[in-house]
Amino acid sequence: MDQHDYSQGAAYVRGQYLPIGQASIPITDWGFLRSDATYDVVTVWDGAFFRLDAHLERFMASCRRFRLDAGLSPEAIAQVLEQCVCLSGLRASYVEMIVTRGQPPWGSRDPRQAVNQFYAFAVPFVWIASEAQRRQGLHLQVSDVQRIPAASVDPRAKNYHWNDLTMGLLGALDAGFDTVVLSDGAGNVVEGPGFNVFCVDAQGRIATPAEGVLEGITRRTVIEMAAALGLPLAQRALPAAELRGAREVFLSTSGGGVLPVTRVDGAPVGDGQVGPVTRRLVDTYWAWHGDARYSTPVRY
Amino acid sequence: MDQHDYSQGAAYVRGQYLPIGQASIPITDWGFLRSDATYDVVTVWDGAFFRLDAHLERFMASCRRFRLDAGLSPEAIAQVLEQCVCLSGLRASYVEMIVTRGQPPWGSRDPRQAVNQFYAFAVPFVWIASEAQRRQGLHLQVSDVQRIPAASVDPRAKNYHWNDLTMGLLGALDAGFDTVVLSDGAGNVVEGPGFNVFCVDAQGRIATPAEGVLEGITRRTVIEMAAALGLPLAQRALPAAELRGAREVFLSTSGGGVLPVTRVDGAPVGDGQVGPVTRRLVDTYWAWHGDARYSTPVRY
Ligand SMILES: Cc1ncc(COP(=O)(O)O)c(C=O)c1O
Ligand SMILES: Cc1ncc(COP(=O)(O)O)c(C=O)c1O
Repeated sequence: MDQHDYSQGAAYVRGQYLPIGQASIPITDWGFLRSDATYDVVTVWDGAFFRLDAHLERFMASCRRFRLDAGLSPEAIAQVLEQCVCLSGLRASYVEMIVTRGQPPWGSRDPRQAVNQFYAFAVPFVWIASEAQRRQGLHLQVSDVQRIPAASVDPRAKNYHWNDLTMGLLGALDAGFDTVVLSDGAGNVVEGPGFNVFCVDAQGRIATPAEGVLEGITRRTVIEMAAALGLPLAQRALPAAELRGAREVFLSTSGGGVLPVTRVDGAPVGDGQVGPVTRRLVDTYWAWHGDARYSTPVRY
Repeated sequence: MDQHDYSQGAAYVRGQYLPIGQASIPITDWGFLRSDATYDVVTVWDGAFFRLDAHLERFMASCRRFRLDAGLSPEAIAQVLEQCVCLSGLRASYVEMIVTRGQPPWGSRDPRQAVNQFYAFAVPFVWIASEAQRRQGLHLQVSDVQRIPAASVDPRAKNYHWNDLTMGLLGALDAGFDTVVLSDGAGNVVEGPGFNVFCVDAQGRIATPAEGVLEGITRRTVIEMAAALGLPLAQRALPAAELRGAREVFLSTSGGGVLPVTRVDGAPVGDGQVGPVTRRLVDTYWAWHGDARYSTPVRY
């Protein structure tokens, strides 16, 4: 890769902007060796950040929960993210900000002695579902793998503890499913690799898990869209059986917004077609991208 | 750092040997971005690996459990590790081998499409306890933080999912303890940041948790030493109350072997001194380093 070719993405690493292919972290950073890090992902669509403030706010909250210090204000972080996007020239981008623990002096095992490190990068937009999957709906497996519980790792602080999600996903892919949702050990579904989950019953009532999940910004957008559209929505435990018997099922993620699910564990959801509530939310989601309240144009 | 100064450690990165300060992983490697990796740590003491075969065997088993491929045979890995130690010249070293998922082609979220990556490094020996702590015993806190359960992440495959351990450790350090042991949500202790835990009752019976822990190589050594010395040892659930009421408590880790604990939650263990069973195991542990069955001299 050319030294100044940012077209595949641009990163901010130890105070420097680099093409994504040259961006690295020290092998000794506890962000890697102990997954001692937090992060957030905001998207750029049609040349504008979507809900940048909400992502920055969640990122700062994640840092506080894990006692990590970005060393930069939200405003300064926003500038770095914008610069990464500008350098890449990308009009649709997946933009990640990261704080790692760094490394304490050699021999010390005290995380408080480490100098935390801030990283960021912008790469081409990453979809969680292909074009065909977005049109026809995803085939979802409910996994026996249990999501790491809140008593172990605070799910509200966005983190890289994904082994459960990855092993669940591998099992689902091997069995011919498109993706997977994990459970909580009490028969409820919680979340999947990169998304929250929702279902709609025969009365049009929407439900999504209240606990044990990342409070996704897209999840929040769905909650706000439901309120704006007058659709009833409850945050509560969501039994896997209810998901299987639902009229509609959909996922929410920065990696594509509202994504329809049309089969769960091999059986059709409702009539097996993308349902009307899901459609309305998909349309509203993209319409809100034009709303100045949520949109921050990138100054390329 | 000088381009060829390996004195602080040497690493093997993408087929090349580098001074540790220059060793890095791509920021886009899922080993970082999803903590999708496994590893092992073997020590070099007095110029010889201790139980290298056992560590290599556990590493290969960890890879299989997480469906990661080192791309090298155990023999080839041993050669890389030895070369890292040789370059560093270290006679006492902490030697880590790692496989990461790597990165699937851009846009893909299928872990099976990623090319796994092998890394290794040798750095100066890292003690989990200072010299004074090893002499006088550690002050241990039993944390409310629950260790990530086996239903979420297989603890027998060594992994970097340490947020629970790190947050528990931070709480313990803030409260003036030396280190921490996590619990399982049912009142039992399991393991701590980098070690297994044991206790000895008034009858001299040793116990260590059977489930929900990494099967530490030092733990295995303790089990084998107990058998060799004729000390009774049980692998079973270990209630926190039993740890608090024990005659002796000790930890096992590659980061220092058998480490005495003389206070739990602020109260003395037994008479508050390092006990005779612990002492015998410490002595035997270091004596076994001279045993050819366990020792692989480094050809510097
Ligand atoms: C575990 C998990 N849950 C949910 C989400 C969805 O969050 P958001 O809508 O903010 O992208 C993500 C996003 O990456 C995630 O990693
Ligand atoms: C979570 C955990 N438990 C136990 C241990 C002890 O294992 P070993 O004796 O092989 O060093 C470690 C070592 O790093 C560990 O990380």
